[in-house]
Amino acid sequence: MEHTYAVIMAGGGGTRLWPLSRRNRPKQLLPLIGEETLFQSTVTRLEGFLPPERILVVTVAEQAAEMRVQAPQIPAENYIIEPAPRGTASVVGLAAAILHKRDEQAVMAVLPSDHFIRNRDLFHYLLTAAEGVARQDYLVTLGITPTFPSTAYGYIQQGAALIGDYKYPCYAVVRFKEKPDDRTAQAMLRTGDHSWNSGMFIWKTESILAEMRRQMPDLTAVLDQITAVVDTPRLESVIKELWFDLKNETIDYGVMEKAERVAILPAGGLGWSDVGAWDSLFEVLLPDMSGNVVTNGHHLALETHNTLVYGLPGTERLVVTIGVDDMVVVDANDVLLVCKADQAQKVKNVVEHLRKHRQEIYL
Amino acid sequence: MEHTYAVIMAGGGGTRLWPLSRRNRPKQLLPLIGEETLFQSTVTRLEGFLPPERILVVTVAEQAAEMRVQAPQIPAENYIIEPAPRGTASVVGLAAAILHKRDEQAVMAVLPSDHFIRNRDLFHYLLTAAEGVARQDYLVTLGITPTFPSTAYGYIQQGAALIGDYKYPCYAVVRFKEKPDDRTAQAMLRTGDHSWNSGMFIWKTESILAEMRRQMPDLTAVLDQITAVVDTPRLESVIKELWFDLKNETIDYGVMEKAERVAILPAGGLGWSDVGAWDSLFEVLLPDMSGNVVTNGHHLALETHNTLVYGLPGTERLVVTIGVDDMVVVDANDVLLVCKADQAQKVKNVVEHLRKHRQEIYL
Repeated sequence: MEHTYAVIMAGGGGTRLWPLSRRNRPKQLLPLIGEETLFQSTVTRLEGFLPPERILVVTVAEQAAEMRVQAPQIPAENYIIEPAPRGTASVVGLAAAILHKRDEQAVMAVLPSDHFIRNRDLFHYLLTAAEGVARQDYLVTLGITPTFPSTAYGYIQQGAALIGDYKYPCYAVVRFKEKPDDRTAQAMLRTGDHSWNSGMFIWKTESILAEMRRQMPDLTAVLDQITAVVDTPRLESVIKELWFDLKNETIDYGVMEKAERVAILPAGGLGWSDVGAWDSLFEVLLPDMSGNVVTNGHHLALETHNTLVYGLPGTERLVVTIGVDDMVVVDANDVLLVCKADQAQKVKNVVEHLRKHRQEIYL
Repeated sequence: MEHTYAVIMAGGGGTRLWPLSRRNRPKQLLPLIGEETLFQSTVTRLEGFLPPERILVVTVAEQAAEMRVQAPQIPAENYIIEPAPRGTASVVGLAAAILHKRDEQAVMAVLPSDHFIRNRDLFHYLLTAAEGVARQDYLVTLGITPTFPSTAYGYIQQGAALIGDYKYPCYAVVRFKEKPDDRTAQAMLRTGDHSWNSGMFIWKTESILAEMRRQMPDLTAVLDQITAVVDTPRLESVIKELWFDLKNETIDYGVMEKAERVAILPAGGLGWSDVGAWDSLFEVLLPDMSGNVVTNGHHLALETHNTLVYGLPGTERLVVTIGVDDMVVVDANDVLLVCKADQAQKVKNVVEHLRKHRQEIYL
């Protein structure tokens, strides 16, 4: 596997975990689950699968310094700075172009920096299996077998099983689907052939660059110019010069939905979560007998069930709950959030409201 | 009405309003409703009915200094210090003895310091009516016409209407009843002849001292010794000397339940609350269209109904609620309480727990 690389995508914010995640304290840099930050876990999760020299991190300038502190094992030249966010298609393209110049046989695993995976052994096993499929010129997605009809995730429908000697069942992809409404989510769960789109991909740099050349000529033109200066002192300035003209595009919409050889490994048992909002963070924390989770702080509970009490590290406040069910209570010092767990997605509406009313101190 | 006095009983704590009320910050000294503290409102509510010179305050040493600051219009000699809490019977007896020595024709209105009454005109009217009944040698209680089957109040059952020229319908008392269970409370509400025991009484000092002489000889023996030194420099030391031997007794149990001439004025429309717990405080605050009440602070509400967000004066925290119904959220800086409104009585269990576990900083 000496030609296998990981590309960690780490530019985003995560407004749905507000008031914990803030502009200058994005989700992936926070220790949301255990001692490590989500970014650190994404790096250490690769231990035993890849050496840190083969991990690339694509991020924005504001976050790079903190990331270097959090993951000093990754060589400095492996941090690639995106001058401005232009969507996951350009991130993937940039990483693919750089890797391909350095190693024409490269296979890259694209990994979000802010997801959680409990089962590291299975994760390594699936990456190895996916790598085998990718070597057959497939663009491979890691799907997550759904456990409930979520409306917060995109879905991928699988078709026929791939013929070949693979280490895990894998299938051709029929289509990608955007976040569904309630009914559609329930219908897809019943069919048994839909997976959640985890945003994790494995492919040869050669395969993804070829698909981009076919579907995204503008991006490819930029990537060609960048390729010419990879590992020269001009790289950074060339990226800066070309980046702002790029169209904002996701890898799903820009490439995957119309790509030709797309495969999926529908995985269960990973203990995966995108930690996208308070309800999904709640799911991966380990509750007590009453279904409650308490982090960082004192909690006194009377008649309290299925409730997350999330204190910022360092808050010393005593939180008392009486007669509280299915709630999320977040104490972020300057902000207190009390939210029904099944309405956690609405936190982003609050952030939008604050932005609109220019309440910058809370953003 | 020159022989009419008010006696404000102000020694208690109020653990059910924790974490707002604390050992050194008892309920009556807090501005729970509007700008005035409950104690200040109890004093100013008497304006136009009594001059401040005819208001006595019975309290404990730890609270007296703060009360003098909050109500400077009351003469210093009208503050009577109870060396230690010995129940409302001794408080009433002590005030009655002192008043009776100063004015043998005195009628005293006994008023808790920590209740709320919205309708001051009606309150004055009822006190005047009750004073007329008390002049006929009745021990008069102000009842509150129940509006729901509360299990948090004691009840008083009324009997026959009193014959006489009174300014408000008044009745003989059949019996006093302790806080009931749910079923009993509902049954009493249906009968239409039960009132909540407000803890407000009006009587001649002569009448109450006579009943005490009949039912509480030990207390009377102490009161006789105190009477001998009223308005001498020895008063304070004599009270101190005798007080600790007194039995702890309430006026209800010690006197009223077996007293001979007891009358009740069952009052509605006072806008009365004992502000005994968070749910009853909530009742007297004025809600917005969604039934929410917010004090002192910023609040952003999505899908939030019938919820009280109570911030300590001076807390600048932003409180965000999403999908929250019928809750009480209290932000007291070092403690955060989230409580279903109908379980507000359980706050006292939390205080007991903290006391048992010696978590003094939160008490």
